[in-house]
Amino acid sequence: MFHVSEYEDFGLHADKYAINMAYAAWKMREGDQIRAFDLYYRHNPFQNGYGVFIGLERVVRYLSSLTFSEEDIAYLKEQEEGYEAGFYDVLRAFRFTGDVYAVKEGSYVFPNVPLMKVIGSKLQVYLIEAALLGFINFQTLIGTKAARIRHVAQTETLLEMGLRRAHEADASIWGARAAYLTGFDATSNMRAGKWFGIPTKGTMSHAWVQDGDELEQFRKYAQVHRDNFTPLVDTYDTLRSGIPNAIIVAKELEGLGHRMKDVRIDSGDLAYQYFNGRAMLDDAGLGYSGMIASGDLDEQLIVSLKNQGVKYDKFGIGTKLSTAYDQPSLGGVYKLVAKEEDGVWIPTIKISGTPEKVSTPGNKAYYRIFEKETGKYAGDYITLHDEIIDPSEPLTLYDPQHTFAKVMKPHHYEVQPMLQPIFKSGQQLITLPSLTDSRQYHAQEKLKFWSEYLRTINPARYRVSLSDKLYSTKQKMIQERVDR
Amino acid sequence: MFHVSEYEDFGLHADKYAINMAYAAWKMREGDQIRAFDLYYRHNPFQNGYGVFIGLERVVRYLSSLTFSEEDIAYLKEQEEGYEAGFYDVLRAFRFTGDVYAVKEGSYVFPNVPLMKVIGSKLQVYLIEAALLGFINFQTLIGTKAARIRHVAQTETLLEMGLRRAHEADASIWGARAAYLTGFDATSNMRAGKWFGIPTKGTMSHAWVQDGDELEQFRKYAQVHRDNFTPLVDTYDTLRSGIPNAIIVAKELEGLGHRMKDVRIDSGDLAYQYFNGRAMLDDAGLGYSGMIASGDLDEQLIVSLKNQGVKYDKFGIGTKLSTAYDQPSLGGVYKLVAKEEDGVWIPTIKISGTPEKVSTPGNKAYYRIFEKETGKYAGDYITLHDEIIDPSEPLTLYDPQHTFAKVMKPHHYEVQPMLQPIFKSGQQLITLPSLTDSRQYHAQEKLKFWSEYLRTINPARYRVSLSDKLYSTKQKMIQERVDR
Repeated sequence: MFHVSEYEDFGLHADKYAINMAYAAWKMREGDQIRAFDLYYRHNPFQNGYGVFIGLERVVRYLSSLTFSEEDIAYLKEQEEGYEAGFYDVLRAFRFTGDVYAVKEGSYVFPNVPLMKVIGSKLQVYLIEAALLGFINFQTLIGTKAARIRHVAQTETLLEMGLRRAHEADASIWGARAAYLTGFDATSNMRAGKWFGIPTKGTMSHAWVQDGDELEQFRKYAQVHRDNFTPLVDTYDTLRSGIPNAIIVAKELEGLGHRMKDVRIDSGDLAYQYFNGRAMLDDAGLGYSGMIASGDLDEQLIVSLKNQGVKYDKFGIGTKLSTAYDQPSLGGVYKLVAKEEDGVWIPTIKISGTPEKVSTPGNKAYYRIFEKETGKYAGDYITLHDEIIDPSEPLTLYDPQHTFAKVMKPHHYEVQPMLQPIFKSGQQLITLPSLTDSRQYHAQEKLKFWSEYLRTINPARYRVSLSDKLYSTKQKMIQERVDR
Repeated sequence: MFHVSEYEDFGLHADKYAINMAYAAWKMREGDQIRAFDLYYRHNPFQNGYGVFIGLERVVRYLSSLTFSEEDIAYLKEQEEGYEAGFYDVLRAFRFTGDVYAVKEGSYVFPNVPLMKVIGSKLQVYLIEAALLGFINFQTLIGTKAARIRHVAQTETLLEMGLRRAHEADASIWGARAAYLTGFDATSNMRAGKWFGIPTKGTMSHAWVQDGDELEQFRKYAQVHRDNFTPLVDTYDTLRSGIPNAIIVAKELEGLGHRMKDVRIDSGDLAYQYFNGRAMLDDAGLGYSGMIASGDLDEQLIVSLKNQGVKYDKFGIGTKLSTAYDQPSLGGVYKLVAKEEDGVWIPTIKISGTPEKVSTPGNKAYYRIFEKETGKYAGDYITLHDEIIDPSEPLTLYDPQHTFAKVMKPHHYEVQPMLQPIFKSGQQLITLPSLTDSRQYHAQEKLKFWSEYLRTINPARYRVSLSDKLYSTKQKMIQERVDR
């Protein structure tokens, strides 16, 4: 369900500085110079041990549809910068013609690894910066949050219900997709269902129950949705009224050969109501009915509920997931790493007073090292793009922050290239996997990581090493700057 | 720049429970029953003293364009609920035919006041819930955050630069609009500029500077953008390299009859770099050049910088504003408040174990009380919709949480109706004001509030009173529930 028309208006989905730089490059006759940019983030969100890369589908749709409309051109003509006419002709003819490499959607990723590498003319790589960052930052953030919730929820069904709290319409559908990719089971968002084929679930609101006598309102709903009767039992009083009324209607449904699915509790003490509510349902012979909890849930609260012995069958998660409430920004960046001059790649670096903000220079390759004996990943390995790794040679992987500590030397290992070529000279090279396939890929990858990287509190730090050549290139460039 | 086509796909921008309830109501032949819903929030965000209502423009565009496409219908047919064919015909013919009342965009608003009142058939009022909440929750949140930043920044120019961190594309443009409405001066987001006429600003990125020798890169930029030269001076070393190079180019520009506009510092110690950078510019005779600070700024950091005597001319604000970082959700709700039966409005209530979650029943009117002597607002006053206020009679306004405390009895006062009729039977009654007018309205309203409500830390609580009749209706309904 991808309509190119959705992207017709995305020419100016860009920061003004990008247009101004594209124009300046064009005016200086440098617009065609080829540059390489890396897209990466510096810290895992939520103090998690990893991120989950998501957003590529959106990026591919955007890049393959990107044009500047006459409306865009007319608007640019009003700007104070006073661009020359020839620049508008360049924009009118614009199609993305660069190369893009990216990690697969659903991959486990880590700080300072290249999630995407973009190679193209200055004019092009400048213009697409904010769009790429906006898409990847948001979807990776939500996917990672959802993965944390999936990790602690283990077997329970997880429903994404954040449409009304997500930051506007686009975030609601792409967030629903990200959550499904990393392990949620369904969404309440019908448009996300339509666009992406995500299963949708929904029951009733307090307004339905308030509209009349609670028992009558339950009856009406059950009469219409006999096989999808999931009463919301907390409108007035869960234990004195909601669940007793739900039981009455469930018994009536039984008489008609149907079964109540679940009762939903959306407020109040979720543990107390669970224990008492579960007992009431069981005593009434409704052991088959599930229970759904919702209302400001997140991974911490789920752990706490389970720790108390509470066993909801399903969790409905809204605000805390769909806004990434405890850290609503990933902070991914897009940095110039190399310039092509006469067919040779010249690395570039961004120095900063903050050491962690110093970029890693160079046109790179990015690998994941799979240890055959254990069936687990030993770490990631980043090289310059033209280095060759010989898997028969020993390899040393370091902790990224304390290179002296936790050194790992895998013996029998496989080298998995992480960056897939997606576009070559603007031509899309591969068909992206279906959402179901990406979801499955994500789930299977999880089995290849040691559990210490996956826990939601105090995870171990995964090894990400630079090759000796890349490491010394970086150190040399830093030293050159210091020596000036 | 409002294209109806943008909304063609918004039929299913809804939660599944809404569709299921609309279907159940239709099936029970209750779909045409008329209901009233209030949209409100329970707590000011960011521990602020007020919210700024924004989102109405988006709601009006949505409601006036809302239809269900054949694609939507086809998708609904796949759902497990098995809707009857007649329901699809209802959706095919769907146009919004309800009444909508709303506070003006840019208004100062408070917890538990009706920001919007929607009256319509059950089928209609159910279907639009999540869309309305999503739009209002987000835009009100960002507008309120921006108002806080404007309040502490006072005279400095404020630039919204959050495109790459906003939660996807829609949030970036509607967030830019909200920030402009409550006092930001410009955005970096070109699409937001095109859509809404917001002034746009942009300079250069680190990538531009890294691309070669810093001085040469500044020169190139200045050569093209002579009157818009705003060098980013922190790529390598602000004080040893960035500002000295900026000064060289500024002097060259002076020779050509142009002036450097600003230097921008995006990282590091913003106070230390200000003091030294300012002195260097002044010593070089560039007192006319401004300075821009950016990099994870928010209202707290701005207050701290000013407290240190730092005097940047402009602040560029991204992540902390555009994601509402410290509280990324407003938590607005949409609650059934009254049912129409034989032309009479019957109030409904939602009870909750959490006292603050008990809704205020009834089809209401909402007023702001303007005290003539002081030229300030004394408080807000909510009544049942058919009550009449006689401004020659004394009025008592209470603190909303401690009704015994801070009682206020304005003598000479004006009663300003807060809820404007926007739609009547689906017909739009008024043309919404331009963004510039709403921005001006917001700025002027600020003068009518005592400063104790406006400060960003520990603001006083503004009075919001229920009329005696409304208050006793609510208490009676709560008591009836307790007595069951």
